[in-house]
Amino acid sequence: MEKVIFDTDPGVDDAMALLFLARHSGIELHGITTVFGNASVETTTRNALYLAQRWGIDAPVARGAELPFVEDRAQRHWPTYIHGDNGLGNIDIPETLSRDADPRPAYRFIIDEVKAHPGEITIVAVAPLTNLALALQEAPEIAGLVKRVVLMGGAFSMHGNVTPAAEANIHADPEAADRVFTASWPVVAIGLDVTMQTVMTRVEMAEIAREGGEGLQLLSDLSQFYMDFYGERVGDGMVVHDSCACVYAVAPELFDVETGSVRVVIEGIADGQTIMKPDRFRFGPSPWDGYPSQTVATGIRADEVLALIRKTLLGQA
Amino acid sequence: MEKVIFDTDPGVDDAMALLFLARHSGIELHGITTVFGNASVETTTRNALYLAQRWGIDAPVARGAELPFVEDRAQRHWPTYIHGDNGLGNIDIPETLSRDADPRPAYRFIIDEVKAHPGEITIVAVAPLTNLALALQEAPEIAGLVKRVVLMGGAFSMHGNVTPAAEANIHADPEAADRVFTASWPVVAIGLDVTMQTVMTRVEMAEIAREGGEGLQLLSDLSQFYMDFYGERVGDGMVVHDSCACVYAVAPELFDVETGSVRVVIEGIADGQTIMKPDRFRFGPSPWDGYPSQTVATGIRADEVLALIRKTLLGQA
Repeated sequence: MEKVIFDTDPGVDDAMALLFLARHSGIELHGITTVFGNASVETTTRNALYLAQRWGIDAPVARGAELPFVEDRAQRHWPTYIHGDNGLGNIDIPETLSRDADPRPAYRFIIDEVKAHPGEITIVAVAPLTNLALALQEAPEIAGLVKRVVLMGGAFSMHGNVTPAAEANIHADPEAADRVFTASWPVVAIGLDVTMQTVMTRVEMAEIAREGGEGLQLLSDLSQFYMDFYGERVGDGMVVHDSCACVYAVAPELFDVETGSVRVVIEGIADGQTIMKPDRFRFGPSPWDGYPSQTVATGIRADEVLALIRKTLLGQA
Repeated sequence: MEKVIFDTDPGVDDAMALLFLARHSGIELHGITTVFGNASVETTTRNALYLAQRWGIDAPVARGAELPFVEDRAQRHWPTYIHGDNGLGNIDIPETLSRDADPRPAYRFIIDEVKAHPGEITIVAVAPLTNLALALQEAPEIAGLVKRVVLMGGAFSMHGNVTPAAEANIHADPEAADRVFTASWPVVAIGLDVTMQTVMTRVEMAEIAREGGEGLQLLSDLSQFYMDFYGERVGDGMVVHDSCACVYAVAPELFDVETGSVRVVIEGIADGQTIMKPDRFRFGPSPWDGYPSQTVATGIRADEVLALIRKTLLGQA
């Protein structure tokens, strides 16, 4: 069983990823930590609690950072044109929920949970990496106690999506991301290089909703707005970015990877860009030296990944 | 006939590219401009004159910049471990040459030649882009008078060779390169993405030398040191970076390309990195906006490129 903490900013593709983690038989979901990103942290926390309530997920929800690690970074606008004004595609969400957030801030929840299960926790992080950077700052020793971090973020051999250089999760907090990539824990980055290949069509989403009942109908409803956005870009469907990181946690064989140290650009036109120094290539001295070799996804069996997601959402994996 | 000015820092692969330009029947070589890069500009100018003398090339040689466009950039070390102490693989070069350089500085030579042949000159640039940036600064109107710039430089969808982010020609003068990419002339960038696929083996070089006589023996002799360097990296042979840009000038059909505006990073860990904003992808406002769409090579028929180089060097194309 993979013990997982899910660090997230729901977010439409976050919602699918959450349901994947909750329903995959090989995963034990230990907690959900929220952060700003696709919406404010108030909104993403509310959304996480709402989705947990609707999908019967018992794992605690701990509210995280509302601002980037370096606080003087300009506040960016929320991507309401992708995830809707409420972060879940503008579906109706009740004012009152039956659940409350954990009293601890997300970084403290992560530290406590990692220390309670040394060497066992996989952090699946699909949002700005602020909570992870704060946890490292508060308790650097957790780097040696986490099994691994699997994150959705970065663009290594292709253009970004927020700028020509940068992917959204990394761009939203480059200083945090650089801390996460250079810490002494194993990091696997599932970036746009592979996630952009995973398009779930509108037809398939409708089939899943029909077959899966109320819980899947909710997923389909909240995904419609996001599919309108992506439909113009990748064909008639949605890119399931965040679910790819969840799939890696249980089926890494569906990915090709390369290893090397990774740094994040924190200024200029490339701000938020992820750059790997491949282990297989020799360079002179550089700012990548002395940092751990991490793992970056370079290829994906997209059809098999999408099939596993479907099976899992339907409770068959 | 392609009228070409060759901007170069010989340099071993520059030498092959020069011979390609001199011997291809579709190219009229109007001039050779030199710049610092693989060695000091004293050395690269001497080398250009020597090669022109040995290979019977009549085109004038104009000496160019000895320092980057922004002069407070730290002087970098010459890559003597790749091109040898004398820039030509440590072959013997006589003290006295039979030719002198053109009295004009390279940027002035470029301006004069472009104005003398409006709309007709292709600049093939395979070195730091300082001369081109100086020409643009002195006479911005030449941007509208150059047919196109075909340059060997950059790394768009892969790591660099000087740093994990940057390719050598661009890294040696990022400010100049940014000016060249953002000027209103058509630029074609032939970067590491494609050049790293063009490996001429030691065996093939020996065959060419046997078949081609004294001129090709010289090329083979000066390439041995460079092949020792590359032999450990790409197999037993040499990457013919600069010749690829020359091949594009006469056989663009051997390349796949993508279009978009290109900026160069001028600070931080990504200093000297080339980043394209692909035209086919939509972004929000960014520092790439308002600049011309340029052309970047993304694929290459490497076997056909190598065959054309061989044929041309042997005077058969």
